[in-house]
Amino acid sequence: MGVLYNQVADQLQGLIRDGVYREGERLPGVRVLSRQFGVSISTVLQAHQTLEARGYLQARERSGYFVRLPARDVPEPRMSEQRSQPLPVSAREMTLDLCADEQKRMVPLATAIPHPDYLPLRQIQQSTLWAARRGLETLDYAFPGKESFRRQIAQRMATLGVPISPDDVLATNGAQEAIILALRAVTQPGDIVAVESPSFPGILQALEVVGLRVIEIPTHPSDGISLEGLQLALEQWPLKACVVVPNHSNPMGARMTDERKQQLVAMLAAANVPLIEDDIYGDLYHTGERPRPAKAFDRVDNVIYCSSFSKTISPGLRLGWMIPGRHMASARQHKYFVNLATSSIPQLAVAHFLEQGGYDRYLRAARQHYREATERLRSSVARSFPEGTAVSRPQGGFVLWVQLPDGVSGTEVYRRARAENINVAPGLMFSTTNKFENCLRLNGGNPWTDRLETAVIRLGSLAHEVQRHSG
Amino acid sequence: MGVLYNQVADQLQGLIRDGVYREGERLPGVRVLSRQFGVSISTVLQAHQTLEARGYLQARERSGYFVRLPARDVPEPRMSEQRSQPLPVSAREMTLDLCADEQKRMVPLATAIPHPDYLPLRQIQQSTLWAARRGLETLDYAFPGKESFRRQIAQRMATLGVPISPDDVLATNGAQEAIILALRAVTQPGDIVAVESPSFPGILQALEVVGLRVIEIPTHPSDGISLEGLQLALEQWPLKACVVVPNHSNPMGARMTDERKQQLVAMLAAANVPLIEDDIYGDLYHTGERPRPAKAFDRVDNVIYCSSFSKTISPGLRLGWMIPGRHMASARQHKYFVNLATSSIPQLAVAHFLEQGGYDRYLRAARQHYREATERLRSSVARSFPEGTAVSRPQGGFVLWVQLPDGVSGTEVYRRARAENINVAPGLMFSTTNKFENCLRLNGGNPWTDRLETAVIRLGSLAHEVQRHSG
Repeated sequence: MGVLYNQVADQLQGLIRDGVYREGERLPGVRVLSRQFGVSISTVLQAHQTLEARGYLQARERSGYFVRLPARDVPEPRMSEQRSQPLPVSAREMTLDLCADEQKRMVPLATAIPHPDYLPLRQIQQSTLWAARRGLETLDYAFPGKESFRRQIAQRMATLGVPISPDDVLATNGAQEAIILALRAVTQPGDIVAVESPSFPGILQALEVVGLRVIEIPTHPSDGISLEGLQLALEQWPLKACVVVPNHSNPMGARMTDERKQQLVAMLAAANVPLIEDDIYGDLYHTGERPRPAKAFDRVDNVIYCSSFSKTISPGLRLGWMIPGRHMASARQHKYFVNLATSSIPQLAVAHFLEQGGYDRYLRAARQHYREATERLRSSVARSFPEGTAVSRPQGGFVLWVQLPDGVSGTEVYRRARAENINVAPGLMFSTTNKFENCLRLNGGNPWTDRLETAVIRLGSLAHEVQRHSG
Repeated sequence: MGVLYNQVADQLQGLIRDGVYREGERLPGVRVLSRQFGVSISTVLQAHQTLEARGYLQARERSGYFVRLPARDVPEPRMSEQRSQPLPVSAREMTLDLCADEQKRMVPLATAIPHPDYLPLRQIQQSTLWAARRGLETLDYAFPGKESFRRQIAQRMATLGVPISPDDVLATNGAQEAIILALRAVTQPGDIVAVESPSFPGILQALEVVGLRVIEIPTHPSDGISLEGLQLALEQWPLKACVVVPNHSNPMGARMTDERKQQLVAMLAAANVPLIEDDIYGDLYHTGERPRPAKAFDRVDNVIYCSSFSKTISPGLRLGWMIPGRHMASARQHKYFVNLATSSIPQLAVAHFLEQGGYDRYLRAARQHYREATERLRSSVARSFPEGTAVSRPQGGFVLWVQLPDGVSGTEVYRRARAENINVAPGLMFSTTNKFENCLRLNGGNPWTDRLETAVIRLGSLAHEVQRHSG
């Protein structure tokens, strides 16, 4: 009989893992299960006790058994290995597919775009209405940026330990454009640039636009870019720049400590290699204080700071900025050459929003949401995905990096999920090599819904399927 | 005595030319002038009659003599000569100077930016208020463009003989970005591209951004790019694209006839060289009907159409579009790589403005203003500048191309004018060679004020000065 109640327990556990019964739900009554499995009531009760012991069920007096998913202890992903050759960068076509219009009806786990529920819609609407009434200010040509916008940025930068004047700020169409302008200012086509690995795909695309070669530096999921790896690369190659996201890097969510930021800045200054810093996730820290940017430790004007409001206020504004320091003249010229100036209305609206003080209030709520939402997604992945899966523990932002067991293809999971209208980002996108073939990036910023939970459970099943076929 | 009244007449004529007495003003009374010049009243009267005969004064019964400037017959500029070698493009630093903030207090004759008085401020404000209330639509991410904006563009393109669907439209940060995306779609760095000569500096800058070499094709001030010159270049060089502004090209304001557009399109299609068309001034024709774009004659999808609202609705919106045809996939990918998408609010606002029908009403008034204003500036230049100056007769838009007598340096006039807070664009900016060293481009779209008239007269004096020194 021992065999029988264990079989029932295994089947129930499978149903729980597949999401048929969900966390917090009450299991059907003993009599129902007895009929369903064709076993005696005492066998059902023994199966219940077994699952309770395994941590999958919780008995509540007079109410029955409730599903409780055990916290599975998934490790963080491993650090990637060192590459030895600079590679030219060429586009992964799938990047664009992820953002295409037709994806809109899919479960949006692929793109690192903030969910509209967590954008400050009312505030930015008020500020846009205010801006629309500014008259001529909205129509004239804001090169190198609206004074009011640049003043607000200078004020925020001061609080981050970067005292600058409004004249040091160049408004851009998002951080992506800022990174391209920074690269153009300090490199020539064919030069070699170091980046984190895995790297935000936009940074690889920026390198491709400027015609650069890349060295990918191993990056730790919590500590960030390997300083030892970077030092080796500096000794071996004539690097012309290094692009780093020190705070909550995408895809792993690592945050460098102040000490490591200081070391990074000093190491690159000593080598006379400019650091291009992307701080786009800096405001979305999950715990503690706003982490400082690397720029705060820059004593010799060797760090070009880039950021935007695309992850906080709205991706649709397309509003970012850069602090090019001594490269201002070159960055301004390139900005002028590529599209002259950044649209005036978004600058006026954001300046007003910042001036009103609503931004910090909004950030407090957004940070809490993203912390809870990514933690919930992490638990769900931990439960649903195959044994041996590792998941990042982001310290900010809202994306998760999932490392499947060796030999399990993330690209195959991506393909099968796509066929079922679940959109995820395959690991291949985050490198010019194939080394992240067994990885996925998931957007953890969505509100938690049944549809989302079902999708994550289904993703886990697909990963199991792919594992069986590759077994 | 004949000598004396002629001397007085010459002196008065000089005062009129220098703007001391202006068109339509009454000359001081006979007695005043008699004292002023220390001559008899009859000598003053003889001088008056002399100037009347020369066409500088008009006698009005019982009112005295009024200044009337004779229409001087200035020719149009010559067509530039053929160049024989492709050249790399590198920035003229002065381009950026012209647009720098500090120029704002200068007399704005340099940049081809529409004057705020002639922008549809009230309408775009209404439409921006409307857009600001759209809610989430304003915050989300408009790739490859807002549906409502692309639909309005498709409707306008249909009226120009270019029947397309909204899906054929890619929203861009102005026409400058559209031209760069088009060049990236059809060329590789180092390729050779043909442009008009003189050429809009933004087109040369776009070529520089993409790393291309240029062949400058002679361009007639009324007829546009020389088809014979282009044919020669096609035979001699492996051109990969040709960028042309068929309607009211900047700086000369030439408009190609439909027949010549057809020939241009056919010639490039036969050579399998894509035509990148910039139609940014198309809506600002001075007479007749809206000229067709070259794209209307494209039967084989070989023309990439680029335009924007920067010369009509507002330069501060930074809103343009392109119709990349079979190069859509490539153009979309490059757009995504350089800055992901174009800001949502300007697209929604302009779509609303176009839908309301206010754009065409506004254009009627703007066209009339620009026609009158450029004509007035042309007359003023004709009167004030040295003998041998030629001035373009633009058929649309609001810039004038001024060709000083041979050997008179436009750069020197630009430098001296700048020192007196008069901002003009030196001819050097419009070519990678020095062949337009004796030219200037003037913005003719400003409202006519005393300050402006004084500035033009002063420019003429400076040109005389430079001529004397180079004589």
